[in-house]
Amino acid sequence: MSDIWLESLRTDSPQDGYDLAIKLARMAVKLTQPDAAVREQLREGYGKDFQALIAVSGVVGTYFQTVAAANDYWRDV
Amino acid sequence: MSDIWLESLRTDSPQDGYDLAIKLARMAVKLTQPDAAVREQLREGYGKDFQALIAVSGVVGTYFQTVAAANDYWRDV
Amino acid sequence: MSDIWLESLRTDSPQDGYDLAIKLARMAVKLTQPDAAVREQLREGYGKDFQALIAVSGVVGTYFQTVAAANDYWRDV
Amino acid sequence: MSDIWLESLRTDSPQDGYDLAIKLARMAVKLTQPDAAVREQLREGYGKDFQALIAVSGVVGTYFQTVAAANDYWRDV
Amino acid sequence: MSDIWLESLRTDSPQDGYDLAIKLARMAVKLTQPDAAVREQLREGYGKDFQALIAVSGVVGTYFQTVAAANDYWRDV
Amino acid sequence: MSDIWLESLRTDSPQDGYDLAIKLARMAVKLTQPDAAVREQLREGYGKDFQALIAVSGVVGTYFQTVAAANDYWRDV
Repeated sequence: MSDIWLESLRTDSPQDGYDLAIKLARMAVKLTQPDAAVREQLREGYGKDFQALIAVSGVVGTYFQTVAAANDYWRDV
Repeated sequence: MSDIWLESLRTDSPQDGYDLAIKLARMAVKLTQPDAAVREQLREGYGKDFQALIAVSGVVGTYFQTVAAANDYWRDV
Repeated sequence: MSDIWLESLRTDSPQDGYDLAIKLARMAVKLTQPDAAVREQLREGYGKDFQALIAVSGVVGTYFQTVAAANDYWRDV
Repeated sequence: MSDIWLESLRTDSPQDGYDLAIKLARMAVKLTQPDAAVREQLREGYGKDFQALIAVSGVVGTYFQTVAAANDYWRDV
Repeated sequence: MSDIWLESLRTDSPQDGYDLAIKLARMAVKLTQPDAAVREQLREGYGKDFQALIAVSGVVGTYFQTVAAANDYWRDV
Repeated sequence: MSDIWLESLRTDSPQDGYDLAIKLARMAVKLTQPDAAVREQLREGYGKDFQALIAVSGVVGTYFQTVAAANDYWRDV
């Protein structure tokens, strides 16, 4: 886990920024539960749990705020 | 899911910005649970669950913060 | 639901801004559960559920952040 | 409930701002559950529920962000 | 509870700011549940509840955002 | 716990900033539950609880907002 996975918060487009937000949200999960098999098993559960899906969206939204600000909201795109 | 669905955070009006916030909130759910049939089934459940509806509103509010900032709060509209 | 319900984030006073935040919070619920009868039924439930009432206040607070920023915190009022 | 209860977000000190944040947090509860007797009953419950107390603190923190920004963080005090 | 407990949001260092964020987070609990014996009892419970501990950290993070902004992120330290 | 553990919010890269956000998120847990053995036991539980893992990610995201702002989003990196 010592690899570089986040070189910059800049992205070319809002959609790329959204994808980065998802990556940032997932990385905290990965660092807390490093076992990929366990994560895969959990995913089956939360993919069918609306409380969890809503919470996932809220978490992505929190990271997206940061990524969007870092890109000045892609005003120049 | 490789299509372009988010070209810009700019919208013509606050209400369009609100609609975009809803779209952003839903997309995280869609990307986490890509099966439309499962999502449709879940929707019936959370549409009658007040905790979930309140949480949905909070998530939309998080995205709306970003969209509103991206549009300078539509001060010129 | 195609009517214009949000023309501007500007309000004359902080209190009007607070009311707008409540409107914004409710609209996400309305758009997710368009059936007014269902919403009315749910309201009876969450009006007596302190977890839900606290959550409602948090959601309104999220929207109020946006409305307050849009009005430069009513510094000139 | 048509009275003026929020004239300004400006306060003389950070502590007054904190008190205002509490007031803002409570008002959303009051407007959602206008029956004071019901609220009083609920308060007994959530005063002994740590999940609820933690949530209350988070909600106050959300409003405090807004009040603090409105006062430029009381840098001149 | 009429004493002055919050004179300023300025602190000498980020760590002092973090401590202030914890103080701000706790004060909302204290003001909602003024009985110290009840709070002490609750603490035993939430200290062993991971959902609660995670929530506590999120609440402190909310206050820390405000304190950090108030100190311009201690850029000059 | 009187040691200095947070000297600055500045980091050399976004990834270091993310790591700092994790540290900040964990420290609130540590200060609330100082017993390392208890924390270790809880970790086994929440590492298999998707609600908790999602919540952890949200909390890290809250701190990351602050760290990212403190570093001007590493625009010069």
